[in-house]
Amino acid sequence: MVIAKARAVDGPDKSFRAAEIERRDLDLHDVLIEIKFAGICHSDIHTAHGEWGAVNYPLVPGHEIAGIVTDVGSEVTKYKIGDRVGVGCMVDSCGECENCVKGEEQYCHKGNIPTYAGVDKYGEPTQGGYSSHIVVTEEFVVSIPDNIELDAAAPLLCAGITTFSPLNHWGAGPGKKIAVVGLGGLGHMAVKIAHAMGAEVTVLSQTLKKKEDGLQFGANNYYATSDPETFDKLAGTFDLIINTVSAKIDLNAYLSLLNLDGTMVNVGAPADPLSLNVMSLIGHRRSFAGSLIGGIRETQEMLEFCAEHNIAPEIEVIAADEIDEAYKRVLSSDVKYRFVIDNSTL
Amino acid sequence: MVIAKARAVDGPDKSFRAAEIERRDLDLHDVLIEIKFAGICHSDIHTAHGEWGAVNYPLVPGHEIAGIVTDVGSEVTKYKIGDRVGVGCMVDSCGECENCVKGEEQYCHKGNIPTYAGVDKYGEPTQGGYSSHIVVTEEFVVSIPDNIELDAAAPLLCAGITTFSPLNHWGAGPGKKIAVVGLGGLGHMAVKIAHAMGAEVTVLSQTLKKKEDGLQFGANNYYATSDPETFDKLAGTFDLIINTVSAKIDLNAYLSLLNLDGTMVNVGAPADPLSLNVMSLIGHRRSFAGSLIGGIRETQEMLEFCAEHNIAPEIEVIAADEIDEAYKRVLSSDVKYRFVIDNSTL
Repeated sequence: MVIAKARAVDGPDKSFRAAEIERRDLDLHDVLIEIKFAGICHSDIHTAHGEWGAVNYPLVPGHEIAGIVTDVGSEVTKYKIGDRVGVGCMVDSCGECENCVKGEEQYCHKGNIPTYAGVDKYGEPTQGGYSSHIVVTEEFVVSIPDNIELDAAAPLLCAGITTFSPLNHWGAGPGKKIAVVGLGGLGHMAVKIAHAMGAEVTVLSQTLKKKEDGLQFGANNYYATSDPETFDKLAGTFDLIINTVSAKIDLNAYLSLLNLDGTMVNVGAPADPLSLNVMSLIGHRRSFAGSLIGGIRETQEMLEFCAEHNIAPEIEVIAADEIDEAYKRVLSSDVKYRFVIDNSTL
Repeated sequence: MVIAKARAVDGPDKSFRAAEIERRDLDLHDVLIEIKFAGICHSDIHTAHGEWGAVNYPLVPGHEIAGIVTDVGSEVTKYKIGDRVGVGCMVDSCGECENCVKGEEQYCHKGNIPTYAGVDKYGEPTQGGYSSHIVVTEEFVVSIPDNIELDAAAPLLCAGITTFSPLNHWGAGPGKKIAVVGLGGLGHMAVKIAHAMGAEVTVLSQTLKKKEDGLQFGANNYYATSDPETFDKLAGTFDLIINTVSAKIDLNAYLSLLNLDGTMVNVGAPADPLSLNVMSLIGHRRSFAGSLIGGIRETQEMLEFCAEHNIAPEIEVIAADEIDEAYKRVLSSDVKYRFVIDNSTL
């Protein structure tokens, strides 16, 4: 058993505090990882604040994990000590259902085991990446290519795969017109990836404040959704819209921007239901869809794609003492574009 | 110019009356059709009652038209006098936009010209199939295969193509599990077509009243949606759900029946918006989509498919004097499964 240093939160309104947590002894296929960097995802905040249901506090969030293998179980074949590795939003699944067999473990029929705020197969609560070490079965560990720095790799494990997967699944590429709604942690990755895939990329953001950034990330066009003319001008334009905004939106207005057979994909879910006028779909055989992270195989593919195309998130590395402040800044959209904790400061 | 006998309605609350309407002189590519049978579609009722917006009365509904060519314009090449032909929900489109060029005229960027309650390119109101004759440009006329009777052919032009098109587009076939919501005029066609395509077909109907019929049409399974156990039992089952019911439904409950990457397609739209919980989509990368009839080329394919597989709608042939009564029976779901007007009784 390893005693890991961590940052934990004890309740919805509490600040983070230094803590120690136990990581299990290595099972046959387990990998012990010394975590070097952990990204801060909006999901961490929702969960820490108890907004996504009851939480078994103390909670150690973090599912954008990059580090180094420091020990391996006796039957591990994929990794050895010293390997640069990552762990994303899930640490296990049943491995046997139709979806797991397909490599879509995120859609495991029995439910995947989330990296934190879940219960693992040993019956223990899972705790995430705001900690010095983690133990994960090798099947849920991915390899980080040499030319991606570990601090930049961390956000790829959630923000990267969450946007890569729908772009990949719905065929973003040359000749395709893609809109990305929201230019935050997820949105800026979506722009970089879609651009690298060869698609024509348009950012739809509330204002033009981050326009320069968006164009630099690879966007061809940038429009403010606060300007009602945007919706008239872009009606029937896009093959694919990736909506990274979890807040409630005027769904029908965005659907009107899709061309024939276009799809709008939500990668996050607003707390309240959306109002959908079915005519918005019927008129051009449009689809409205949802997508959840990506499978382990696809996560590895995403990392190799990012390595090949020199794609990295824009990050601001912080010390562990700055987590509370970082949360506040995420909530006020004051982040360009992802906070990453330097776990040496735990 | 041809003076055609017709049945027209003069206002939302009026009964049908005998009328005479003018059909234009044949333009170069026009075909004059003597209409033998016209199906009664729920859309006819919505439009006649003014429920889908203002109507320019008097109105002659009917977009399920089967008849015989009795004259052709000087440059017509596709048809000759005596041919058995059909006309569906549209009689023209711009012919030049991206979607028209693709053969998806129903999604014409300028809007297709509906068979009735529209305005044609000559600026004249269009009038539908409850009439003895119609003049249509040859590109919007389809050929009815010899082994389909004209009375049975009529409903294929709307109910047939409206269900064939999404089944075809979303790949219904061997190994696919398809649910059809509602066993009415559209639903019973969806069952027959999906079964002929080789899919496993399940009917989801409010009650089990029509179960025997459903199984006879080719359904493998039949469930009552009024039984809450149905939704538990079938959770995560279907690759494709064709929703033929225009009434408001519990969308999230139906979406929960889709398997990974499954799609639910509405072929009709409820008057009020639906409430959609985005988590219903994200959990299994599900899609909610809409589909509008089908293109002309696909309509011809559908007719040939039906001919090859001996598919015909279940019809009740009525005289023109019975239209008002038939409307009432459609509204009370008392029809098995499509009323078809014998136009010789006009």
